Amino acid sequence: MSSYLITGTSRGLGLTLTTCLLEQPKDQVRFVAAAARTKTSALEALIHQYPGRIAFIPLEVTREQSVHAAVGKVQEALGASAGLDVLINNAGIMPFVPEGIIQATNLMSTFEVNVNSVQLCSAAFLPLLRKGSKQLVLNIGSILGSITLAPSMAPYPTSTYKVSKAAVNMLTVQWALDLAKEDFTIISAHPGWLRTDLGTDQADLAVETGAKGVLEILDKVTRADTGKFFDIHVPGWDSEGKLNKYEGGELPW
Amino acid sequence: MSSYLITGTSRGLGLTLTTCLLEQPKDQVRFVAAAARTKTSALEALIHQYPGRIAFIPLEVTREQSVHAAVGKVQEALGASAGLDVLINNAGIMPFVPEGIIQATNLMSTFEVNVNSVQLCSAAFLPLLRKGSKQLVLNIGSILGSITLAPSMAPYPTSTYKVSKAAVNMLTVQWALDLAKEDFTIISAHPGWLRTDLGTDQADLAVETGAKGVLEILDKVTRADTGKFFDIHVPGWDSEGKLNKYEGGELPW
Repeated sequence: MSSYLITGTSRGLGLTLTTCLLEQPKDQVRFVAAAARTKTSALEALIHQYPGRIAFIPLEVTREQSVHAAVGKVQEALGASAGLDVLINNAGIMPFVPEGIIQATNLMSTFEVNVNSVQLCSAAFLPLLRKGSKQLVLNIGSILGSITLAPSMAPYPTSTYKVSKAAVNMLTVQWALDLAKEDFTIISAHPGWLRTDLGTDQADLAVETGAKGVLEILDKVTRADTGKFFDIHVPGWDSEGKLNKYEGGELPW
Repeated sequence: MSSYLITGTSRGLGLTLTTCLLEQPKDQVRFVAAAARTKTSALEALIHQYPGRIAFIPLEVTREQSVHAAVGKVQEALGASAGLDVLINNAGIMPFVPEGIIQATNLMSTFEVNVNSVQLCSAAFLPLLRKGSKQLVLNIGSILGSITLAPSMAPYPTSTYKVSKAAVNMLTVQWALDLAKEDFTIISAHPGWLRTDLGTDQADLAVETGAKGVLEILDKVTRADTGKFFDIHVPGWDSEGKLNKYEGGELPW
């Protein structure tokens, strides 16, 4: 009977996370607040398919005013006395920087969408999360944000995304430390390299595989896991010669 | 006969790094370009004390136009055909956030001063560094930016600084990877917790100790060290019960 808020649900991983959650029985997933800048036809279809279990929340994650307006809309959708159980900070961009970090000019804009959005949304929805029954926040990180693994990730021409995702990891840990005393579970997770607009069709996995992996992590984590950085587990994935292993468990900072 | 550019030299660590360098023989340290927003009286005094070996470079590290103007001024100070040997990206702020990350509103501004400045300065001075004889860039990081050590650093109420310094570490690694083929050495270093305006008088070490530790790292590193994150070494430091160990060597990400 849990309620979820997911950001960046118009397409890609966010849309698929929303779909996978709604496919679960209603006594497990009561409600999904699907936040995005625009209500795509895919979201429209879900709203028709699952009446009363999903609401579209207009949200521009980089605009504080929009984030605050979204809080009111989520509260309204949940019902006045209800809390929010799970927040998935998924909205993000991965600009290609083929010329390398030395010519990158998009560090601030990437940081704003990928990192500051997590800060703004987590802070704004904190009162609703405190009223919820799970106190669970999952930030979509990336193996590309692992500083330890950076040398082997050098071929991926997304340097500013990498810096932003390292920052998301530290931000996750700061939130986890601050809210440990309130029994929150706040984690970062690598959803895999997925065939979406963001991941391109060169990617390793179907978006459904990544979404299921992320939801599996959400199901498994306990409060003892707060502040950790998880990989999804893809059984049968042949990791031979591949950068991504998908073995589950923790990834190195 | 090396030339240096240091940012944030009006006071604190930057000023002391400048002073320590100028105290070295002229055949080792030929010239220091001391960049800062304002020419403090301490900088004025150094300019009088070491004529011809130091120039003040007006620099607002967050403003691209100012950074580009500084390149022209450094080139002029060095002489038209000379390159720059060493860049120390030192400018930074450490805002206190005693109410914790959950109420922090300064993530973007901290990121701009502490991270984007490193990107702007490194990119703008790259042509001069390529003309130099050392290809050495040291970014002032912090043990507070270590995600691994974050739980033990929780008592320090500077959450947004911590996120920014984790990002500086990843940015350092991205630069190191991109410029490895040009034999650059690009590292991050923790200068210690220093008694400066930034570090407060509660800090572990005199600013001179931190500056000497940083310069010792600069002296020791080779191209094989590019992309690493170093601690200073303070011989005789009693680390018993202290968070900082100052044992030299690498710090964990």
